[in-house]
Amino acid sequence: MAEKMSTSTRERIRTAMAELMRTQGYGATTVKQVSELAQAPMGSLYHHFPQGKQQIAAEALRAAGAAYIQLLPILMDPHEDLREAVTAAFTDAAEQMEQAGWLNMCPVVTVAGEIADSEPALRAVTAEILNSWIARGTEYFERRGLDAMQARQFTLALLSALEGAFILSRTLHSTEPLRAAGRALAVQLVDDPV
Amino acid sequence: MAEKMSTSTRERIRTAMAELMRTQGYGATTVKQVSELAQAPMGSLYHHFPQGKQQIAAEALRAAGAAYIQLLPILMDPHEDLREAVTAAFTDAAEQMEQAGWLNMCPVVTVAGEIADSEPALRAVTAEILNSWIARGTEYFERRGLDAMQARQFTLALLSALEGAFILSRTLHSTEPLRAAGRALAVQLVDDPV
Repeated sequence: MAEKMSTSTRERIRTAMAELMRTQGYGATTVKQVSELAQAPMGSLYHHFPQGKQQIAAEALRAAGAAYIQLLPILMDPHEDLREAVTAAFTDAAEQMEQAGWLNMCPVVTVAGEIADSEPALRAVTAEILNSWIARGTEYFERRGLDAMQARQFTLALLSALEGAFILSRTLHSTEPLRAAGRALAVQLVDDPV
Repeated sequence: MAEKMSTSTRERIRTAMAELMRTQGYGATTVKQVSELAQAPMGSLYHHFPQGKQQIAAEALRAAGAAYIQLLPILMDPHEDLREAVTAAFTDAAEQMEQAGWLNMCPVVTVAGEIADSEPALRAVTAEILNSWIARGTEYFERRGLDAMQARQFTLALLSALEGAFILSRTLHSTEPLRAAGRALAVQLVDDPV
């Protein structure tokens, strides 16, 4: 009963790792910090994650990745016009980031950039997440009227622009990069659907 | 004379730091690794950089940032048509990245994403570099015919798309994100100059 009412230890460890990667990246995060933030003893942590930090990070990134892609229809479905949907999604992201004190909204990609050359197993995990986003995004934009190739190209351009603008906006403490990136994507949809 | 012929110790330390940040990020890099790669004793390293790792990183990022922005006119000037110039720049970057084994082509932004919340002094350095890129890019695209506001918006969209696509291409070991991002930017220039 207590088990059902409280968050599981495994989930607390995973959430703590996600939070630490969000604020300080993968390299600066230690298993000891994870253990403390999760309020889970080291023995329990290694019981759940025998391979340690990398395994916790993989599970944390997969959980974050699965959650983030669900935002795509949630943010865009309310807008009948696809151009409006794209502009609104970037504007919403910009405003949320500013209100949250320039929060890292996508640790999946900041960690991907940090570890791509130094942690091959974790790079494979981030590639698997990105590929699932590209597949889901392509399906979504096909439903919104683009043909299959256009939808894939547009998804790749949108993810690139969004992730780059996340880092620029967060670094500059300014919503300007996210707004400019969103507008640039929307413009091409109007005048020539990709 | 020997001093003039060989790379200075300070420069070797800075270059070693840049290389380590490129391949493993800021958090995973230790001063000891920098000392070893630069073949500079720890005493010499702290003589040149009394504040240690953060100070070395700041100098390394500034040097990299100053070098990278010079690529903008080098890559784009040969193309009279601005759409061709943008497409070519992204295609060149994609091919170079693939040939170099998916090299991190912009440690400035991967480090910016990693440390924005945890290293305020270093965030300020990356913001200063990004702002100088935005100013130089805006000047460049004004010379290429955009008005001042269009040029700034286009620079922000281009930097966002390029930096995001760098991380996606490097993670996926695929030139597809960089090519798609370049095409998406070029299309909007043709049909509606931003």
